[in-house]
Amino acid sequence: MKVKQPAVGIVMGSDSDWPVVEEASRLLNEFGVAHEVRVISAHRAPDAVAAYAKSAARRGLKVLISCAGGAAHLGGVLAAHTPLPVIGLPMPGGSLNGLDSLYATLQMPAGIPVATVTLGKAGPVNAAVFAVQILALANPELARKVVAYKAALERKVAEGDKRVQADIAAKRRA
Amino acid sequence: MKVKQPAVGIVMGSDSDWPVVEEASRLLNEFGVAHEVRVISAHRAPDAVAAYAKSAARRGLKVLISCAGGAAHLGGVLAAHTPLPVIGLPMPGGSLNGLDSLYATLQMPAGIPVATVTLGKAGPVNAAVFAVQILALANPELARKVVAYKAALERKVAEGDKRVQADIAAKRRA
Amino acid sequence: MKVKQPAVGIVMGSDSDWPVVEEASRLLNEFGVAHEVRVISAHRAPDAVAAYAKSAARRGLKVLISCAGGAAHLGGVLAAHTPLPVIGLPMPGGSLNGLDSLYATLQMPAGIPVATVTLGKAGPVNAAVFAVQILALANPELARKVVAYKAALERKVAEGDKRVQADIAAKRRA
Amino acid sequence: MKVKQPAVGIVMGSDSDWPVVEEASRLLNEFGVAHEVRVISAHRAPDAVAAYAKSAARRGLKVLISCAGGAAHLGGVLAAHTPLPVIGLPMPGGSLNGLDSLYATLQMPAGIPVATVTLGKAGPVNAAVFAVQILALANPELARKVVAYKAALERKVAEGDKRVQADIAAKRRA
Amino acid sequence: MKVKQPAVGIVMGSDSDWPVVEEASRLLNEFGVAHEVRVISAHRAPDAVAAYAKSAARRGLKVLISCAGGAAHLGGVLAAHTPLPVIGLPMPGGSLNGLDSLYATLQMPAGIPVATVTLGKAGPVNAAVFAVQILALANPELARKVVAYKAALERKVAEGDKRVQADIAAKRRA
Amino acid sequence: MKVKQPAVGIVMGSDSDWPVVEEASRLLNEFGVAHEVRVISAHRAPDAVAAYAKSAARRGLKVLISCAGGAAHLGGVLAAHTPLPVIGLPMPGGSLNGLDSLYATLQMPAGIPVATVTLGKAGPVNAAVFAVQILALANPELARKVVAYKAALERKVAEGDKRVQADIAAKRRA
Amino acid sequence: MKVKQPAVGIVMGSDSDWPVVEEASRLLNEFGVAHEVRVISAHRAPDAVAAYAKSAARRGLKVLISCAGGAAHLGGVLAAHTPLPVIGLPMPGGSLNGLDSLYATLQMPAGIPVATVTLGKAGPVNAAVFAVQILALANPELARKVVAYKAALERKVAEGDKRVQADIAAKRRA
Amino acid sequence: MKVKQPAVGIVMGSDSDWPVVEEASRLLNEFGVAHEVRVISAHRAPDAVAAYAKSAARRGLKVLISCAGGAAHLGGVLAAHTPLPVIGLPMPGGSLNGLDSLYATLQMPAGIPVATVTLGKAGPVNAAVFAVQILALANPELARKVVAYKAALERKVAEGDKRVQADIAAKRRA
Repeated sequence: MKVKQPAVGIVMGSDSDWPVVEEASRLLNEFGVAHEVRVISAHRAPDAVAAYAKSAARRGLKVLISCAGGAAHLGGVLAAHTPLPVIGLPMPGGSLNGLDSLYATLQMPAGIPVATVTLGKAGPVNAAVFAVQILALANPELARKVVAYKAALERKVAEGDKRVQADIAAKRRA
Repeated sequence: MKVKQPAVGIVMGSDSDWPVVEEASRLLNEFGVAHEVRVISAHRAPDAVAAYAKSAARRGLKVLISCAGGAAHLGGVLAAHTPLPVIGLPMPGGSLNGLDSLYATLQMPAGIPVATVTLGKAGPVNAAVFAVQILALANPELARKVVAYKAALERKVAEGDKRVQADIAAKRRA
Repeated sequence: MKVKQPAVGIVMGSDSDWPVVEEASRLLNEFGVAHEVRVISAHRAPDAVAAYAKSAARRGLKVLISCAGGAAHLGGVLAAHTPLPVIGLPMPGGSLNGLDSLYATLQMPAGIPVATVTLGKAGPVNAAVFAVQILALANPELARKVVAYKAALERKVAEGDKRVQADIAAKRRA
Repeated sequence: MKVKQPAVGIVMGSDSDWPVVEEASRLLNEFGVAHEVRVISAHRAPDAVAAYAKSAARRGLKVLISCAGGAAHLGGVLAAHTPLPVIGLPMPGGSLNGLDSLYATLQMPAGIPVATVTLGKAGPVNAAVFAVQILALANPELARKVVAYKAALERKVAEGDKRVQADIAAKRRA
Repeated sequence: MKVKQPAVGIVMGSDSDWPVVEEASRLLNEFGVAHEVRVISAHRAPDAVAAYAKSAARRGLKVLISCAGGAAHLGGVLAAHTPLPVIGLPMPGGSLNGLDSLYATLQMPAGIPVATVTLGKAGPVNAAVFAVQILALANPELARKVVAYKAALERKVAEGDKRVQADIAAKRRA
Repeated sequence: MKVKQPAVGIVMGSDSDWPVVEEASRLLNEFGVAHEVRVISAHRAPDAVAAYAKSAARRGLKVLISCAGGAAHLGGVLAAHTPLPVIGLPMPGGSLNGLDSLYATLQMPAGIPVATVTLGKAGPVNAAVFAVQILALANPELARKVVAYKAALERKVAEGDKRVQADIAAKRRA
Repeated sequence: MKVKQPAVGIVMGSDSDWPVVEEASRLLNEFGVAHEVRVISAHRAPDAVAAYAKSAARRGLKVLISCAGGAAHLGGVLAAHTPLPVIGLPMPGGSLNGLDSLYATLQMPAGIPVATVTLGKAGPVNAAVFAVQILALANPELARKVVAYKAALERKVAEGDKRVQADIAAKRRA
Repeated sequence: MKVKQPAVGIVMGSDSDWPVVEEASRLLNEFGVAHEVRVISAHRAPDAVAAYAKSAARRGLKVLISCAGGAAHLGGVLAAHTPLPVIGLPMPGGSLNGLDSLYATLQMPAGIPVATVTLGKAGPVNAAVFAVQILALANPELARKVVAYKAALERKVAEGDKRVQADIAAKRRA
């Protein structure tokens, strides 16, 4: 199989974030969206981040996903160096429960947005889905997949409802 | 001049938000991005919100911007009813200083993202710029405008630097 | 035994909340209040939520209890579609310790209240008791049960006092 | 005009809260719901609060609304002494921006709920509407008024939308 | 041994707090301060709390220590019914990490103070020590014990310093 | 008139706090409690603070009230150097709304309590009243004044109730 | 007068911060410390920030002071590009009251510190004083000035004490 | 080997902090920076803290690192008594998750800075690195080590990137 040109670049500040971020990569694979994953720290490898972001559009990337914790500057540094949309995925945890990474990702000054998704377990999923929704604007097949994905979510809720009804019925009989 | 098909839909929960949200509309105009603006409350006009969101893709909209305060459900309700990307603009102020609108906009469950921008004065600008960045992926002219916009921001910083140097020099002479 | 017409509808955003919410159901059973339990997500199954809420009064329900976490829009969406009183039960936990679900449940705009109960372990109990207190206004037998329930709580405190006195006495002898 | 038996008791911790709380009273009048308003402090007049709450059901009251700020114990003390449903209206402002009154009202222990409404300007409205929704369960005329009230809210949103469209059109012409 | 007249009354909202509160009792014993311990809930046994507080001064108590969590009204209810000084010990933990019990204990209105001590592990110790410091004003022997207690704390710090120096020296040799 | 030996020492970190703290002094005068007021900063005049605290008991003071803002170390430094009870009065305001002064005053380590009163307008009153309550334990006349003070508070609530009833009656007639 | 080689570089994200930051510059002048002031935004002029930081040590600067608000990445970007010590001065205000700038400045990852000073009015003073304290380690004259500066602060506290004593005496006479 | 004159003094409020603080000591050793470690509590041994800080400059120390939790006054007390730069290391954890130690360390009044580093695991490393950066200003060998240290951090990020690429490649093959 030929490797497709990646459309999404996932950038992490540390490889310790990979177990969390991998879910975003897994979901992009599920949607068939080619992507690359990189570990490049805004603070420990700032020139590499700048170089990565500056070349991103030229290399054919469409959307960047930035994953960082604490004083999470990665999203802002990427956004400073690229005209592409940057999705911010704040890492939860730490002494401030991720509020530091949330604020440092979200509170960008006027003109340089980082669009931020859920702080917590739903974050990696939502970063990937939002990237897919952007790409789907120019890709009707992907747009159909988004619609199907949401229909599947709705079915899962109905299945959850059935499980609870079954549990109630079972306990009533017991 | 013919009215262009709107690409962006800005939705507010209340027309009292319009003075804040207008800045986003103004900036979209500056970028030449056709858009529509609607006041539809998730709580007071829920069927209208659902109808709006369900028809959005069909009517040619590409991106929705949701502006709401307090228990800001508008972004989530829009995202629930459309496969389009929804940008969340939390309204600042109120008794909880906008933390309620931030959390209610951002903390969406897995699969239904609302990508949220800055809480505060930079918010409307960043919602508009992010929408433009998305649209620019399929519009080379718009992409050039984004690059030019960021270069202008950089020039404004340099002008601010000159103002401060002038102020220092003036005070030193005084 | 004939199934009684349910007077309370408990709605959860996800069946993963059932272990927490079940306590509310258990307590309603203890009070002899017929109720139904449903899993319907405001974001993943928005039309089902709207349909449920719109038909609630017609189907004889008197009170709805809404249980959701994160950007907890469920209570607001139910309240938007029904004239019935909606009790909000914010789910604790997550990266923001339930503050997101609390604010998203509580901070409803003027005219569409969701009356919110304790964030934490006491929440499901208090949602159920509050629903019972409402129903008891038109049901003298239920009103007597509420009075008896509160008297039982008072006795339990007295028993707790005895346990502590016994513990102190035992340690003094040891 | 004969004075009707009050169905709702509004209790404030201090008459300095009256300018805020008056909106709740005004709305109850609009719905035609007879009510009484009392200033009784949980901390400065504790016996009066207990006496008030103990006699409330006997005197024909159906719902209590508790309005207090800071360490807002009023709702809890009322709920401790009455089987009636108690709605908590936390007063905003002060050094902790009303978070103290919110938590002190909301975080009741298991078995003694105070159902809390919006912290902020929407609070008094929502306390009144929630009380009306409870009373409407046994009063079909009041139930119709609730439906009409919500329809009026929906119309106001539509009017707000028109104002914004007019503003946009006017500026486009200018 | 004759039981001495208790000078301090420790009151808890629930016997589940006893494992935490016991440390305060243990320390009062160490200082030789007679005290009583009671479980009386402000919300579940309000008349008992009022009766306890009203009789406290008459029964010879000098200081009350109030221990409660969540919407911790106990300290305020005690202070409302007694002219004695009330020390508030907020219980940590729960969904809001004890901020609810801290604010509900501390933020008393003008004229009815509850003097609050450390939220966390140091709390029970500090409630007891503060009570002893009050009693020591009229009891020279107790005043000497307070001075000795503080000198012992200082010695423990010096011993901690020695342990660290020994650890460093040991590791340097290793 | 002979100057009485001061029983209470009020210490402020800065004379800019005097307009707030003066209310505590005024109330102590109202109770007839002799006291002294000093401006001594824990950070800018640390030796003076230590000397003041070390001599306090010897000079006949019974209670210290510490008033400081920001990293409010004053209460802790006083408590470190005296066996007397120290009441902490956190100054509200500043960039963190007084949460910094609250935490820095309250969160003392085990064995060195600073008993903290209301953050906000009620704070100076409550610091003074709590000091009076301590002194009243050994002063029956002062004890009677505390009881009278609380009775006066209760009367003021009743007067507030009358004002509201009058306002309602006036508007009904209007 | 010859312009001395600047030892301190003050960098702001926007010239709108200059009215706040100027106090730091004024104080450095008072200490006779040559310094330069620059406006360079981490997000709008990222290459200029990197170039500035990379050349700072070579150009003879010893300490950098970073002043930024919101998602305040400036300190981190400077620290990423220079081995010099970077002092972070978080800008107060905005929708999150400066908590965003505080966390984004402070919460740097291991190995790339930004040492942060007071959030609020004392911040610019403390950034300047800390820079002076660092430079004073190699400059005995500056070290003497630091000692004199602290002695002057102590005198100002004593003067504040005199003002309060005078106010009390005047009011007693009145 | 002769013991070198210590340049850095690490002071802890309690030896229970040593397991956390030891990382700072280990890193100073790695940089070859002689230092001393002391346990001296600001509250339990205040005279020892004052004596330590007053003699610090005279004994040849250049920088102090203060490590404390809760109402963390240690940094402020050290800074009050020495003209040397004091680095504040707030201890995480406790009922307020270290926010109390952060605010009590950071929010120093004008003129007496404590420059604060990361709250959390990165804190001890950053306190040590910042101390080294200060000392390196007068020590070219140390300055080279700082540059080398940062280069090593950059290499570690590159290694992390390789680990992730390897993991992705391995899973793709699997």
